[in-house]
Amino acid sequence: MKPAIDKTHDPELRSFIKTANDGVTDFPIQNLPFGIFSHRSKEPGPGIAIGDQIFDLRAAHRLGLLPPDIPGEAIEQSSLNALFALGRDALTGLRHALSELLSEAESSAPARHHAIDLLVQMSDSSLHRPTNVGNYTDFYAGIYHAQAAGALLTPENPLPANYKWVPIAYHGRASSVQIGRGDIRRPVGQLPPAQPGEAPEFGPCKRLDFELELGFYVTGGNALSESIPLKNAAGHIAGYSLLNDWSARDIQRWEMFPLGPFLSKSFATSVSPWVVTADALAPFRVPAMERPAGDPRPLGYLLDDDDQASGGLDIDLRVLLSTGRMRREGDMPAEILRSNARYLYWTTAQMVAHHTVNGCNLHPGDLIGTGTISGPRDAELGSMLELTAAGSRPITLPNGEMRGFLEDGDEITFRGRCQRQGFASIGFGHCSGTIKTSHSH
Amino acid sequence: MKPAIDKTHDPELRSFIKTANDGVTDFPIQNLPFGIFSHRSKEPGPGIAIGDQIFDLRAAHRLGLLPPDIPGEAIEQSSLNALFALGRDALTGLRHALSELLSEAESSAPARHHAIDLLVQMSDSSLHRPTNVGNYTDFYAGIYHAQAAGALLTPENPLPANYKWVPIAYHGRASSVQIGRGDIRRPVGQLPPAQPGEAPEFGPCKRLDFELELGFYVTGGNALSESIPLKNAAGHIAGYSLLNDWSARDIQRWEMFPLGPFLSKSFATSVSPWVVTADALAPFRVPAMERPAGDPRPLGYLLDDDDQASGGLDIDLRVLLSTGRMRREGDMPAEILRSNARYLYWTTAQMVAHHTVNGCNLHPGDLIGTGTISGPRDAELGSMLELTAAGSRPITLPNGEMRGFLEDGDEITFRGRCQRQGFASIGFGHCSGTIKTSHSH
Repeated sequence: MKPAIDKTHDPELRSFIKTANDGVTDFPIQNLPFGIFSHRSKEPGPGIAIGDQIFDLRAAHRLGLLPPDIPGEAIEQSSLNALFALGRDALTGLRHALSELLSEAESSAPARHHAIDLLVQMSDSSLHRPTNVGNYTDFYAGIYHAQAAGALLTPENPLPANYKWVPIAYHGRASSVQIGRGDIRRPVGQLPPAQPGEAPEFGPCKRLDFELELGFYVTGGNALSESIPLKNAAGHIAGYSLLNDWSARDIQRWEMFPLGPFLSKSFATSVSPWVVTADALAPFRVPAMERPAGDPRPLGYLLDDDDQASGGLDIDLRVLLSTGRMRREGDMPAEILRSNARYLYWTTAQMVAHHTVNGCNLHPGDLIGTGTISGPRDAELGSMLELTAAGSRPITLPNGEMRGFLEDGDEITFRGRCQRQGFASIGFGHCSGTIKTSHSH
Repeated sequence: MKPAIDKTHDPELRSFIKTANDGVTDFPIQNLPFGIFSHRSKEPGPGIAIGDQIFDLRAAHRLGLLPPDIPGEAIEQSSLNALFALGRDALTGLRHALSELLSEAESSAPARHHAIDLLVQMSDSSLHRPTNVGNYTDFYAGIYHAQAAGALLTPENPLPANYKWVPIAYHGRASSVQIGRGDIRRPVGQLPPAQPGEAPEFGPCKRLDFELELGFYVTGGNALSESIPLKNAAGHIAGYSLLNDWSARDIQRWEMFPLGPFLSKSFATSVSPWVVTADALAPFRVPAMERPAGDPRPLGYLLDDDDQASGGLDIDLRVLLSTGRMRREGDMPAEILRSNARYLYWTTAQMVAHHTVNGCNLHPGDLIGTGTISGPRDAELGSMLELTAAGSRPITLPNGEMRGFLEDGDEITFRGRCQRQGFASIGFGHCSGTIKTSHSH
């Protein structure tokens, strides 16, 4: 299933919620991302971001405003898993219904009439993790990241021999996925020995880092021992969020041979609270990243003409850093890098096809990360490791502070935004985290 | 919390269920393992294996036979997660109550009276996955395996420099954990190129393998950013099962650099259906594996006198192979190896302490594997990779058939049994899987 451009993407479409029409919000009526929110003492439940408001899907369902193929059991939940279990067609149908309900047109009369029950101020609400993440997988599809990080972590073999054949990935830790609104406790662990053969150090991580990624959520899914062919793979993606794969570089370097990263990642992974649907992103599809001359043609199960033609995503990604001193002195956060989701060597559909080719079963609500999305230029490198050459060339902030890796009090914020001539711009909200001092051991 | 030997381990204790007293059953009254079963059209629910019967915990709760600190919400479930969320003390209390209820003594009168409602034949029942595995982690704590497999997979670096410092682990795939009673579909995937630099092959795995492991389940757990100190770690282990970490060696060799195994493992992981509690295993505790002279002392967070004195487990482990031809000809399965859980370089408590030292949160019902448990002798190697030196020295079965790796129709069965003078023997039941032909691609 390929996302199609349809009337829900009409740039002339306006909402009766005025803040959705201001041209700067991340959440115009052309976006309609899903999330889990709570308001006052109510239980968390599903909602849609629209301007500075949240549209309450449970209340809408109780009022009979949602399509009949969206059962109450899918909505009366504190996570989006049951909604995503309905599959992409149901989500697309729901998007069309919501686009009408929230528009300025006559069709919105029922929602306008009940607006006081259906809408809450986002600033008055708490946002929660969108799904109960049953499984979290992280790919390594940003080739500029693989090249840059590989040169630093494993200089003897910067781009592995398998890289241009295999969409490399590893299983991540699901329990520590959280929404990017909170504190990140600096992890403690074994750090590499000062000299080979000596004892490792033990203590707080000294090389704490972020990784700029996109995350995406599974809708539908597959049974164990079945696989999802590439031509159907995009139909199993509900939507996208920003994802920060926080990384403890020193712990990672010492622990990762031979089975890969473990404690260096499992202390926290942050996702932005709103899931921007694959449907909302249809206008921002671009061709898959062009493979440099001489690169091999993907194997058959990873090759599909439609996917090559429109499997890429044009999403502008930015990372902002705000130090404790900057906040105390009233300085704005500093933009430290800007990249784009175009720089993925494998499309997200290829990731789904690869993930399931062996019969591995994907469940609705599972989270998949793309891997760090660096670009070819210095200002496009998606982690401190890369930006500072492993701390050896610290970056200088506008107030003169310097950073090799992250220090306590530093706040990292990701932003994502899509723009294309002839379409309304849509955004991802933000994904933030502030580094807190380690617990003592 | 250290498991204690108490009256529930008394070898003189007998059950009113006669098959529990035959001296050969894996499930005498001294065992009392937890599982999830269903009988006829009833919904799956928690039960206890006793002889050839299953004692129905839901029915016992409805009759008011369980301790008052075991709430209905923990029992009226189709998985053990809610029961394990109560923590080790509650599980220990429940064990004591069940030991009395199922004994020959007078205290068993209520259970005897209601026996027809409370007991079902195991052979008439279906067994299910014990927990909804939210997170599955696999360690690499079998040092003889690490040495033997390392010499074959990464000969340049057989035992990594970090091995004796770091309890190495990786995140596994939770969705494909299943109970070991079914079919294992041979996975399809990218196989290593015939020559470096050439294109990989694509097709069914040619080097399909098992890995002999123990699995253990988390009870209680910890909040994100907190850690579980070693002295408390054993108190977060509910119990143990046999675990087969099925492995596609050719897929693994090609995909695993640099982020570790992915599709080579995620097609299936099998666990035995019964969770033998940490309490039941108290008599079979032994000192942690003795570290060879010259090995470093573990870092402080991994060192505890009690754990060194009794953190090991004496569990006899066997692997049986039955080929399609053997079954057709009525031959018994052949024992192809015998090992013991003593051969773990790190205790399971050290694994829990290490897993959480960075603040990673463990949830009740999470599954943790020990890694392959090989012993120092040839007949103790815990995978085909090791037993056959990567297929180069095939094993010969009693009927003359030879095996380098597993062929379609082969059935692998794990057994585990504990024996100690002065105590009743207890067992793990079995964990099986039969290899089925790949789906064509």
